[in-house]
Amino acid sequence: MTQPDWIAAEWGAAHLRIWQIGAEGRVLSTAESGEGYEQTDAPGPALRRLLPDLDASVPVLMSGAGLLPSPAVPCTPPVAAQAREEDGLRLLPGVAQETPADLLRGEEVRVAGFLAMNPRFDGVVCLPGAQSRWVHVSAGEIVSFRSFLTGTLFAGLPRLAAPEAGWDEAALVEAADRAMGRPAGIAGDLAAVLAEMRLKGLPAGAASSQALGLLIGLELAAAKPYWLGQNVALVGEGALVAPYRAALAAQHVPVVQADGARMALEGLKVAWRG
Amino acid sequence: MTQPDWIAAEWGAAHLRIWQIGAEGRVLSTAESGEGYEQTDAPGPALRRLLPDLDASVPVLMSGAGLLPSPAVPCTPPVAAQAREEDGLRLLPGVAQETPADLLRGEEVRVAGFLAMNPRFDGVVCLPGAQSRWVHVSAGEIVSFRSFLTGTLFAGLPRLAAPEAGWDEAALVEAADRAMGRPAGIAGDLAAVLAEMRLKGLPAGAASSQALGLLIGLELAAAKPYWLGQNVALVGEGALVAPYRAALAAQHVPVVQADGARMALEGLKVAWRG
Repeated sequence: MTQPDWIAAEWGAAHLRIWQIGAEGRVLSTAESGEGYEQTDAPGPALRRLLPDLDASVPVLMSGAGLLPSPAVPCTPPVAAQAREEDGLRLLPGVAQETPADLLRGEEVRVAGFLAMNPRFDGVVCLPGAQSRWVHVSAGEIVSFRSFLTGTLFAGLPRLAAPEAGWDEAALVEAADRAMGRPAGIAGDLAAVLAEMRLKGLPAGAASSQALGLLIGLELAAAKPYWLGQNVALVGEGALVAPYRAALAAQHVPVVQADGARMALEGLKVAWRG
Repeated sequence: MTQPDWIAAEWGAAHLRIWQIGAEGRVLSTAESGEGYEQTDAPGPALRRLLPDLDASVPVLMSGAGLLPSPAVPCTPPVAAQAREEDGLRLLPGVAQETPADLLRGEEVRVAGFLAMNPRFDGVVCLPGAQSRWVHVSAGEIVSFRSFLTGTLFAGLPRLAAPEAGWDEAALVEAADRAMGRPAGIAGDLAAVLAEMRLKGLPAGAASSQALGLLIGLELAAAKPYWLGQNVALVGEGALVAPYRAALAAQHVPVVQADGARMALEGLKVAWRG
């Protein structure tokens, strides 16, 4: 295979994804493993397990490395010059926020990628995940952000893994609406979903959709200042994107959508060019 | 060893506990395994793994078997005559509630044990666990109940397992108070706890206490009709009891406390006597 000019890498909560980049920014190949920063503290060895034949002379630019500069908001787009060299990698720092304590680990690069593709965007970027992030962007910079543990809370629920057959959107939206109206009831409402499975034969797909809807509704109630009357861009991939889109649509929030992995690559290219 | 007259058994969400009972209700021995009803669907094999030398002629009375009668509230104290024979066991049915859909699996026997020890008790029994249950008791019967998934939500949080060194009670109570005042904020507040660990060196014990405090506060906000102005009995064992007691004390709720395993045994004895 052609030797790549450089390697773009995103270290996420539950994945390590790389793109081998050739002449004129062409993607020569991609690869992905499950060794995210929740699974290991060492991105170098994880990268070499994913790319055992990697030539040490090829530079690697990695986002999500999570070793952070001093708290600094607003945030200008990431550039490779900010990267710290460690273990043969160039690690792009994340963003730390002082109050409320919060951080971005790679999402800031996805936001930069989205802004590169949508240079006139002003509004809020919502990035679903183990932690969902709501990032307020103005004039090409990150103004503030807020994280929610929604995806993690959902993943920890027994017997309610994401349905293979897809979401029951009506059940999800109804549950989200219920949780927005009565957020304190969430732990009781989740117990009731499990009880309805057992006592009334509620199908697993509808139960799962209700449970996720409740948790997204709780998040939307608290994140309201981020989405009410705002342009919202939904940036992500995987099973959580459609539920967020449906719940936001039910609140009459117009949403533009972009693929998360694609935005990560575009953001890493922006940082590489400097 | 003396042959037991009968065996009392409790099948909980995450445990199977037995007591070998001899003459005059004396406990000859106890044993426990981690094979609860969340781990296996078959209590018979789980019991025989715990008691491989069990003589098949010794009757076993087991609560929590979870195969329920038709929805029925109020609930009279359980008696062995209600038990269903299966796989050599006498399985005491739980209690199902129609609206909101909810169920008790063994907690009704703990409540019966508590009432046997405290015959004049009128009020609410709170049973912390993977699902906490609030059970309204009047005139010796269960009037209504409500379950909350608080313990399960806490157990699913990464890096926040219960602290070995004990709870930071002040942090726990402050967080519970915060969540009661602003329940919608819970998923964001939990993300902030993780961020404070990373950015500000918040110790794991304080972080864990804050996270559990937030989740208990959320529950207390929704369970308020159950504890406000009520006699509350806290029946449980293990790591969750002290946090519930502290959070209730901060709301000026007088609480009496009883050991959960002891109440299970007393309740099974009540049911056995019929």
